[in-house]
Amino acid sequence: MIIDAHAHLVAPDSLYAFRALLLADGGYHGGKPKISDDALAQSAAGNVAIMDSVGTDLQLLSPRPFHLGNSMQPSRMLEHWIRANNDTIARTVALHPTRLAGVGALPLSPDEPVSAGFAELDRLVDEGFVGVLINPDLHEGRGATPTLGDRYWYPLYERLVERDLPIHVHSAGCYSDRETYSEHFVTEESIAILAMLRSEVFTDFPSLRVMISHGGGSVPYQVGRWQAEVLHPGLGGSADTERFEQSLRHFWFDSVLHYPPALELLIKLVGSDRVLFGTEKPGSGSAPNPETGRDFDDLKPVIEGFDFLGDAERQAIFEDNARTVFPSLKNHS
Amino acid sequence: MIIDAHAHLVAPDSLYAFRALLLADGGYHGGKPKISDDALAQSAAGNVAIMDSVGTDLQLLSPRPFHLGNSMQPSRMLEHWIRANNDTIARTVALHPTRLAGVGALPLSPDEPVSAGFAELDRLVDEGFVGVLINPDLHEGRGATPTLGDRYWYPLYERLVERDLPIHVHSAGCYSDRETYSEHFVTEESIAILAMLRSEVFTDFPSLRVMISHGGGSVPYQVGRWQAEVLHPGLGGSADTERFEQSLRHFWFDSVLHYPPALELLIKLVGSDRVLFGTEKPGSGSAPNPETGRDFDDLKPVIEGFDFLGDAERQAIFEDNARTVFPSLKNHS
Amino acid sequence: MIIDAHAHLVAPDSLYAFRALLLADGGYHGGKPKISDDALAQSAAGNVAIMDSVGTDLQLLSPRPFHLGNSMQPSRMLEHWIRANNDTIARTVALHPTRLAGVGALPLSPDEPVSAGFAELDRLVDEGFVGVLINPDLHEGRGATPTLGDRYWYPLYERLVERDLPIHVHSAGCYSDRETYSEHFVTEESIAILAMLRSEVFTDFPSLRVMISHGGGSVPYQVGRWQAEVLHPGLGGSADTERFEQSLRHFWFDSVLHYPPALELLIKLVGSDRVLFGTEKPGSGSAPNPETGRDFDDLKPVIEGFDFLGDAERQAIFEDNARTVFPSLKNHS
Amino acid sequence: MIIDAHAHLVAPDSLYAFRALLLADGGYHGGKPKISDDALAQSAAGNVAIMDSVGTDLQLLSPRPFHLGNSMQPSRMLEHWIRANNDTIARTVALHPTRLAGVGALPLSPDEPVSAGFAELDRLVDEGFVGVLINPDLHEGRGATPTLGDRYWYPLYERLVERDLPIHVHSAGCYSDRETYSEHFVTEESIAILAMLRSEVFTDFPSLRVMISHGGGSVPYQVGRWQAEVLHPGLGGSADTERFEQSLRHFWFDSVLHYPPALELLIKLVGSDRVLFGTEKPGSGSAPNPETGRDFDDLKPVIEGFDFLGDAERQAIFEDNARTVFPSLKNHS
Amino acid sequence: MIIDAHAHLVAPDSLYAFRALLLADGGYHGGKPKISDDALAQSAAGNVAIMDSVGTDLQLLSPRPFHLGNSMQPSRMLEHWIRANNDTIARTVALHPTRLAGVGALPLSPDEPVSAGFAELDRLVDEGFVGVLINPDLHEGRGATPTLGDRYWYPLYERLVERDLPIHVHSAGCYSDRETYSEHFVTEESIAILAMLRSEVFTDFPSLRVMISHGGGSVPYQVGRWQAEVLHPGLGGSADTERFEQSLRHFWFDSVLHYPPALELLIKLVGSDRVLFGTEKPGSGSAPNPETGRDFDDLKPVIEGFDFLGDAERQAIFEDNARTVFPSLKNHS
Amino acid sequence: MIIDAHAHLVAPDSLYAFRALLLADGGYHGGKPKISDDALAQSAAGNVAIMDSVGTDLQLLSPRPFHLGNSMQPSRMLEHWIRANNDTIARTVALHPTRLAGVGALPLSPDEPVSAGFAELDRLVDEGFVGVLINPDLHEGRGATPTLGDRYWYPLYERLVERDLPIHVHSAGCYSDRETYSEHFVTEESIAILAMLRSEVFTDFPSLRVMISHGGGSVPYQVGRWQAEVLHPGLGGSADTERFEQSLRHFWFDSVLHYPPALELLIKLVGSDRVLFGTEKPGSGSAPNPETGRDFDDLKPVIEGFDFLGDAERQAIFEDNARTVFPSLKNHS
Repeated sequence: MIIDAHAHLVAPDSLYAFRALLLADGGYHGGKPKISDDALAQSAAGNVAIMDSVGTDLQLLSPRPFHLGNSMQPSRMLEHWIRANNDTIARTVALHPTRLAGVGALPLSPDEPVSAGFAELDRLVDEGFVGVLINPDLHEGRGATPTLGDRYWYPLYERLVERDLPIHVHSAGCYSDRETYSEHFVTEESIAILAMLRSEVFTDFPSLRVMISHGGGSVPYQVGRWQAEVLHPGLGGSADTERFEQSLRHFWFDSVLHYPPALELLIKLVGSDRVLFGTEKPGSGSAPNPETGRDFDDLKPVIEGFDFLGDAERQAIFEDNARTVFPSLKNHS
Repeated sequence: MIIDAHAHLVAPDSLYAFRALLLADGGYHGGKPKISDDALAQSAAGNVAIMDSVGTDLQLLSPRPFHLGNSMQPSRMLEHWIRANNDTIARTVALHPTRLAGVGALPLSPDEPVSAGFAELDRLVDEGFVGVLINPDLHEGRGATPTLGDRYWYPLYERLVERDLPIHVHSAGCYSDRETYSEHFVTEESIAILAMLRSEVFTDFPSLRVMISHGGGSVPYQVGRWQAEVLHPGLGGSADTERFEQSLRHFWFDSVLHYPPALELLIKLVGSDRVLFGTEKPGSGSAPNPETGRDFDDLKPVIEGFDFLGDAERQAIFEDNARTVFPSLKNHS
Repeated sequence: MIIDAHAHLVAPDSLYAFRALLLADGGYHGGKPKISDDALAQSAAGNVAIMDSVGTDLQLLSPRPFHLGNSMQPSRMLEHWIRANNDTIARTVALHPTRLAGVGALPLSPDEPVSAGFAELDRLVDEGFVGVLINPDLHEGRGATPTLGDRYWYPLYERLVERDLPIHVHSAGCYSDRETYSEHFVTEESIAILAMLRSEVFTDFPSLRVMISHGGGSVPYQVGRWQAEVLHPGLGGSADTERFEQSLRHFWFDSVLHYPPALELLIKLVGSDRVLFGTEKPGSGSAPNPETGRDFDDLKPVIEGFDFLGDAERQAIFEDNARTVFPSLKNHS
Repeated sequence: MIIDAHAHLVAPDSLYAFRALLLADGGYHGGKPKISDDALAQSAAGNVAIMDSVGTDLQLLSPRPFHLGNSMQPSRMLEHWIRANNDTIARTVALHPTRLAGVGALPLSPDEPVSAGFAELDRLVDEGFVGVLINPDLHEGRGATPTLGDRYWYPLYERLVERDLPIHVHSAGCYSDRETYSEHFVTEESIAILAMLRSEVFTDFPSLRVMISHGGGSVPYQVGRWQAEVLHPGLGGSADTERFEQSLRHFWFDSVLHYPPALELLIKLVGSDRVLFGTEKPGSGSAPNPETGRDFDDLKPVIEGFDFLGDAERQAIFEDNARTVFPSLKNHS
Repeated sequence: MIIDAHAHLVAPDSLYAFRALLLADGGYHGGKPKISDDALAQSAAGNVAIMDSVGTDLQLLSPRPFHLGNSMQPSRMLEHWIRANNDTIARTVALHPTRLAGVGALPLSPDEPVSAGFAELDRLVDEGFVGVLINPDLHEGRGATPTLGDRYWYPLYERLVERDLPIHVHSAGCYSDRETYSEHFVTEESIAILAMLRSEVFTDFPSLRVMISHGGGSVPYQVGRWQAEVLHPGLGGSADTERFEQSLRHFWFDSVLHYPPALELLIKLVGSDRVLFGTEKPGSGSAPNPETGRDFDDLKPVIEGFDFLGDAERQAIFEDNARTVFPSLKNHS
Repeated sequence: MIIDAHAHLVAPDSLYAFRALLLADGGYHGGKPKISDDALAQSAAGNVAIMDSVGTDLQLLSPRPFHLGNSMQPSRMLEHWIRANNDTIARTVALHPTRLAGVGALPLSPDEPVSAGFAELDRLVDEGFVGVLINPDLHEGRGATPTLGDRYWYPLYERLVERDLPIHVHSAGCYSDRETYSEHFVTEESIAILAMLRSEVFTDFPSLRVMISHGGGSVPYQVGRWQAEVLHPGLGGSADTERFEQSLRHFWFDSVLHYPPALELLIKLVGSDRVLFGTEKPGSGSAPNPETGRDFDDLKPVIEGFDFLGDAERQAIFEDNARTVFPSLKNHS
């Protein structure tokens, strides 16, 4: 069974028109998007057809991250918007319950405590979502959100552990003028990993499960830098220090790396038990690769072609690791 | 001949005590550091001994980047400080003229035009420096410096082309609370590459030479993401679009990647004619790697061990590319 | 002929989904909305059906004001968005050229000069638009845009006079937490009138034509206050001072007042030659009035029922004044 | 008996010189104004003479609103200044106890809780004041004071209900560069009404009595807009929704509208039991109306001339409603 | 003849009530104070009586500094206010032309160029004023006005030299919460002296005449600190450096030091040709000294009692130095 | 015995290089300075030699104030830096325990409560320090630290009284662009005195001992101003008010006034029981006075030469007062 652990909602325009409406009236009138059943069925069917075309059996659907808008002001708009996304995912999953499962978002706003997301988190569990997508930069490129290593996030971690939900780390928009949202994804994934490893989070929450998007940002590539730093005598390192490559295995990583040598580097570094098949398809990788004739995000053949992997390792990447990170998938067989 | 294209000044404490003094009086009294000839000779000799121990013939010495402090306020301190660094490099190079060459810094301050650095740039040329180290984030993690793709930098590019000096891109401090300076290096290198490639810089300055530190940040690893983006039909891409991996060859990259598979990925992606041997030694990589018994930043054996490289390619990496990027090295044979 | 001088575009969700997309990527990729001809034809037909139901022959269509978003940041999004609105209006008008005419918006952003809107203004003229809708509060409730009496706006007035285009004053969104956008409309109309009358605008631009929305905000009701102020000896007034009620006739006013006694007050105060029939239908007034059984914004019967008006006066309100203010309507007969 | 429910203190220059002194020393030395008994007697007598000239029996005197200065910084000046105003009113009332009654102000400062005004409120009750004048925009045009519908004000409402004191809503200065203080009065009265009606205030404080200045800002004129909004099906309205014109009767309104048709509109809309005679005389309306030969603010003849009113209704407007809103006037017969 | 070079206007309350009025309406209506001739004559006569009581023949009258309000916002209020002060001084001087002479203020506002004061400066000369009072801290304790050594002030210095007018340095209000305005006077006088001596002002404007208030702030007392600094070898000093005590003689100082040993220190340090008799009477020093039975600011007997002074020196202090600094006094004999 | 109550640490460059390092990495790595025993011994010996040359028996050593950096951001750097200073003082004192005693600094940061310094304060006591040096302007010229009269400081005063430690008031850096740090010293000493005397501090903490640097800033010189103010009837003064010169004796003052007439004025004003011998040598006064041939800060001969002092008074200044203020010196005989 092929589980794509990183995919985003394909929704009718009406969902995004609702976003524009919230923006226009500053969220004053609240409300919900008006998405017809027909329009939704049509977009859902389109997505399933894409899955069929690349051999995906089950997709974990989360909101389009660059639309999340955690930094929107006034922040009263956020709750309406996040709920609209989650509702649309739930309706979509309900149309294809064996092919799709939901990963929801939370209405987390900069300068508010993370408990602002608890009500929605509980609702997600009740509605059968299997994980939450967390944007580690609530300011979306314009401020200093405490990193995921900061105690600011602890109440959320407690709740997640309690509800046995994993985190999918994925940043959202970016308004810094220095990075596009897509570039910011990579930056934020790197910060998430390094800040969490400098912190006590995994000591304090040993059962917290965290999947980092896009193969871990820059970290696997720059890993020598961090290996040296933790061992550097001038910075307190010694032969007894835990190796960085070992620490890295606190995380799971998706395979959303459209360059096969990079994906190979990742799997060899962190191990096949720490990588989940993920494609983000359809998405920014859905362009045909002139060299292969297939889309860049058609990653199943790439992994099948890695001869350094054994069958059990491929099975781990394609399915088993997803079941470890997202245990509620037990209902999907 | 082995040229290490990325190394930083090893200086006596007196240089940095001068930095503290400037800070304390807000730069009011200006002045210069008081570094005795003896102390300087001792630190220079130490550095040369390290070079000998790893087989480096010639090092390009620039200031310690994380000390640069482009964002310091009041900014009148900056000019004194940058000049002090460059002077100390010049004195150090003068002690070992066949083993060392200077790469200088410029007093560039956020919210001032880049022409603020021209006087020092001209002085560097006069004193025989072979390149300049540019921090692309003058705000040091606390603001929105225009990226290197922005016209803000054009007057500097004009002057550099005129004086035939290359840029070594390397960020400095970081005060954002989200990243250490070391992590910020990687972020800024990625931004530098992506922003310059989105811009017209290489069209407008075809002879500008730019070396990116630390193997190009995250870009070579995430290259599939950018390959797909430029070809994505929804974003204006087509089969005629220049391939991203081709565009990437506008840059040169150093080899400061302490994880051999990452260095291998880099060389194979951009070509051996685009990678310069560089170690940043002594520096943050100067910790012993328990697996090899050698320091992480002892990269000469690593490259020598790459059997996918031919002799000419190794020669390019170890020496020839450095001579291409830094043509003034013709005086060092 | 019944001309409704104040009506807004009815558009498919795809237009607003494009707004959400711009917001999400910060306008980086720009682009245009994807609105199918079918969807557009359907929404246009719906609007014409409404016109038929209330006896309107011709509507002046402008963008939905509360969606305009002049204060959006980064402001590069604005130009794409305004152009998308104007384009959609042009396509809609082209479907029903005898029933609709276009009033366009301009990409005016706070802290930029008004000349930023000139290119679009010229394009509007070329495409047959008959007027421009101007938001006098470019900060949308969060800052201090110079009032319409300020010289900030003079370059725009010059260009409008040159191109013989009138202004329809209508504010856009409001993010102040103290007012809804709808309440802010009224506030801004009042400010526009009072600030322009305190200024030299009508002396400097005697041929500038300005229509104020919603019956002039609070000014006709509070007119005694301003009548007294201009005549107050302690504030420099005397028997020679121009009467305020006379000054008020520099403007035209629409009839978008859903309370008949208020509309009566307006017409009697400013004269039937200064009021244009306008309904903003369909819009916020499209709720059934339990007392009449008709929608609040079904104003034609109201005006027809005013027995203090003669036929010529009704004709002025229903058609002739619109032709005076929007002379390009000569092509619509 | 003719009760003028809206009039402001006429005081000697010494009161305002004290304001300048507080400003000059930043309130450091505090103190009190030095107003001689003679000067005070002279200004009080002048005011009573004006009352006699227009037939007013009793005036409710509050501080000159545009002098209130709630936003003054440092805010320690405010308490001295408000107390000086209230003291001067008390001294003035004591000179003509049958002709004048006091309405006091409170030292409410933005960013402080409203409880900062409790001590003065209690003092006002002890000294026989019959109401308090509340500025709903403590930032005076430069910030976002929570509206009167916000829970920020609840502690004050509790205290007012407890002490059985009504609120006279009247904004103070305005420093926004977009409105004069006089224009801001109208804006703030509109915001006060609309925000309170959107909130739960009148449910939570059914016995709170609120008089809005200047005939209710823009609301009675724009009432059709709000009637439609509450009934609009798209915004949650239905035939069961309370009519807006009914909701409006939670408030009382003064008659400070110097344009008779506007005053007529108001009385017919809200009912003669909800309008209090008020003139703000002497004030900004004290300019001679060339058409009538009387001052604009000489409103008694205007109301006497309304033939749509019966005697009981005139009696309500001239006296009875004032006694309902300000029950402490029972001591004035 | 006894000339008191430092005295401030004694004015009726009406002047300051005008200040309060400007503040209340944000300067919108501008205007002038309403000061009756009688009230002005009374306050002027009171002042002359005080002069008679302490033996002063001629006073230089400037506005009360702590009322100046250079930092007032909106700054359009400032011009009206400064002009009102200067006008009141002119009217007062006109009542006692042999006993009083005027020193005017300028409408200088932070963040505006000093040329904003030129029109008023020219008017002062035309009206016979003999000097200008300059507040060196236009932000009044809340910002960073360029010091008097900065080129910001050069256009004013040029104009003053051209019109042959001296500067009386005296700060105004203070809103920093750390100092009262009176304490701030001392701080600002010290800054004025030290900043001007660090600058090139006296080289560039050799004929500029500057009188520092209150005996020079802290500088004469702390003079050893500055004597050492200019001579300190580590800071560039040497035996050839101009002595600080010599540099200090670029200034003139008034005698407003109510502690005789301090005044003695001053005269001995800077010389009797650099000190002008000044008392600021009536002012903050007008409290009886229990030890002498005379007011602290009754300084004539103190200077007469200094036996280290000869007659010519006393004559210089009492009259001649004033005539040097304020040459227009030639008309007063 | 000659005790110099005001002297600062003379340390090797390595201490200050550590400061630069903290700055460069934003304090992330923390750590300690690397100061060799040899280097420290050398600088300590140099200092003792200077003491010998001017006849000082015992010096109270505190950190170089202008290096303290209380306002440094991120503030996590501060604790490392202050501790490094105190540690270096402790090591220096340990080398010459009979000649030196320590006065420590505390890691007090603006916007944090003073309790942030308690742990270090307790450590200082444990390590034998005899007092603490307090910077009253934690913002270092860029903000509004509550004055020493504010309750903000009360928890610190309580702790100091409890531990029987005196305060040495001495400001640190200055970044205001209007004053050098040295000028700011004088300003802050004046503010400290005046603000504490306006407050209740000495009533609430009668046993708190406070020594003001540099002879009390401007206050002794400007004392007549404050004598008059407290007695001024218009400001609440009367014959019963405590005289200012009496209030001033709540403080102790050091003798760091390099101009003998100023020192004479001080001693005569506050009494020889309130002045402590202090030289700040070596420091900014260590420049040769051309008139005497001795350094300006060689103050022992100056005091010995004051013939208005008796032997007991000189003994008080040279030794006894220091023992009163710093009672822990009982161990130094």
